[in-house]
Amino acid sequence: MRRRGRFPAAVSDRLGSVGGVTETTHPLDRAVALEPLGEGLLRGHTDDAWSNMVGPFGGITAATLLQAVLRHPERHGDPLALTINFAGPVAPGAFEVAVRPVRTNRSNQHWSLEMRQGEEVVTTATVLTALRRETWSDTEAGPPPVPAPEDLPRASAERSVRWVENYDMRFADGPMPEEGGEGAAESTTTMWIRDAAGRPVDHLALTAMCDSFYPRSFLRLARAVPAGTVTLTIHYLATAEEIAAQGSDFLLGAVHSHRFHGNYHDESARLWGRDGTLLATSNQLMYFKA
Amino acid sequence: MRRRGRFPAAVSDRLGSVGGVTETTHPLDRAVALEPLGEGLLRGHTDDAWSNMVGPFGGITAATLLQAVLRHPERHGDPLALTINFAGPVAPGAFEVAVRPVRTNRSNQHWSLEMRQGEEVVTTATVLTALRRETWSDTEAGPPPVPAPEDLPRASAERSVRWVENYDMRFADGPMPEEGGEGAAESTTTMWIRDAAGRPVDHLALTAMCDSFYPRSFLRLARAVPAGTVTLTIHYLATAEEIAAQGSDFLLGAVHSHRFHGNYHDESARLWGRDGTLLATSNQLMYFKA
Repeated sequence: MRRRGRFPAAVSDRLGSVGGVTETTHPLDRAVALEPLGEGLLRGHTDDAWSNMVGPFGGITAATLLQAVLRHPERHGDPLALTINFAGPVAPGAFEVAVRPVRTNRSNQHWSLEMRQGEEVVTTATVLTALRRETWSDTEAGPPPVPAPEDLPRASAERSVRWVENYDMRFADGPMPEEGGEGAAESTTTMWIRDAAGRPVDHLALTAMCDSFYPRSFLRLARAVPAGTVTLTIHYLATAEEIAAQGSDFLLGAVHSHRFHGNYHDESARLWGRDGTLLATSNQLMYFKA
Repeated sequence: MRRRGRFPAAVSDRLGSVGGVTETTHPLDRAVALEPLGEGLLRGHTDDAWSNMVGPFGGITAATLLQAVLRHPERHGDPLALTINFAGPVAPGAFEVAVRPVRTNRSNQHWSLEMRQGEEVVTTATVLTALRRETWSDTEAGPPPVPAPEDLPRASAERSVRWVENYDMRFADGPMPEEGGEGAAESTTTMWIRDAAGRPVDHLALTAMCDSFYPRSFLRLARAVPAGTVTLTIHYLATAEEIAAQGSDFLLGAVHSHRFHGNYHDESARLWGRDGTLLATSNQLMYFKA
């Protein structure tokens, strides 16, 4: 499916554009749009289409920082790893991103980033990019057996957070529990996910999807407790070509927690293409109160 | 078991000390020793006891950066997460560590670090520390069933890298393969590990142990290929008290890879106390050539 906008082209032309971002731009591309302010400094704006309980969906903030690397003139190679630390809430409005290539090696490159609002650092991140060559290859972690997405109902986007409207999610296992029902014995959720508007997957979209699982505490406790990601690490295990080959088809995601203890729990996720290609792993720590 | 040195106290007193680090100091404490140079800047030295194929064992570099946070006067809480990126080889000799508390919240704190040698950044890192309170708790990932360490032989330290001599490792599954033998069908290694000199485990020792598994490519290919960690993320899932309760007893580690492809593979590890407490997860990406 081709990327499509909310308005027909004739209407969007009249709406005009700001910095190349028109009203027909896909919500993801609109949210990660960055305007250069000077060497290693960019300005962006939060986008209401990605609103979460407090501030924007963490996945879109991660994608925005990755975009600061991807559009840097000295960038060398494709994303290999990203760690983002959510230091404080991102307020609605403008933010600045400082991006710095710390070291460039022959086959990889190390980046440091900070997102700021006024005097406050709201997120820090490190990114690795790399040039890859053919090597001996093997995938040990194949996708779990699940029904095809066409055989599963689309999950309701009625979750009081707006960002989920950007996705078509279909739960094969571990759907959002009913408030006040019985908590699940295990924290596993397995779901198909694709962009609701058919935007093809790339490193930016994959990054956001790596954070698209609802908090595991909700599943175990069968209620929405205060919860938020404090740190997220993504390892990109596929090449850009393998990611692009997924087009706008569903990806399969599986997530579980190892331990809930003392205000924090982890979440460990894997994302595969429908063709079984393991695209990425994602590991995060969430704050929770229960 | 109490911490013990290589020499009786009477001998060590005569040997004297440099910056509080005596010859009887445990190799881990000696390696992570840092001398303040000014605000947010420290100096350390590589230690031959931790030599790896190229430069020092990555686990000791990670512990050294964590130590820069732990001894910072503004530190607030215990380690919650650490990501370290190995940007280039650490040369034998002195290095500087720049450590900066980026943001201090009520219950957690975000840190950015760089290790430098001359003009070169050799590692970057981010660390989160946090104050924890009692919450609803559960561990889903229990230890795999393995024989007691007393029923397993101690692995040979003859691995041409000196750092392994600091550990007593006992393989329950997936030992180092014989060079030229048949590669394993799966990348899992399960092993008991403890400090060879009986130093009790703390966040520093646990950090180093999180990187103590030999490369998964060696196991799959039954040969030592060029390999090195490029990024390592540790999530500390236990409190300082739970870690201290392990004393100098064996910890159980289990590691496996999800995918080997295009010069990189991941490694996903969990470490438990002998009492079954899940202490940490560790996820890394390794460069490899095969």
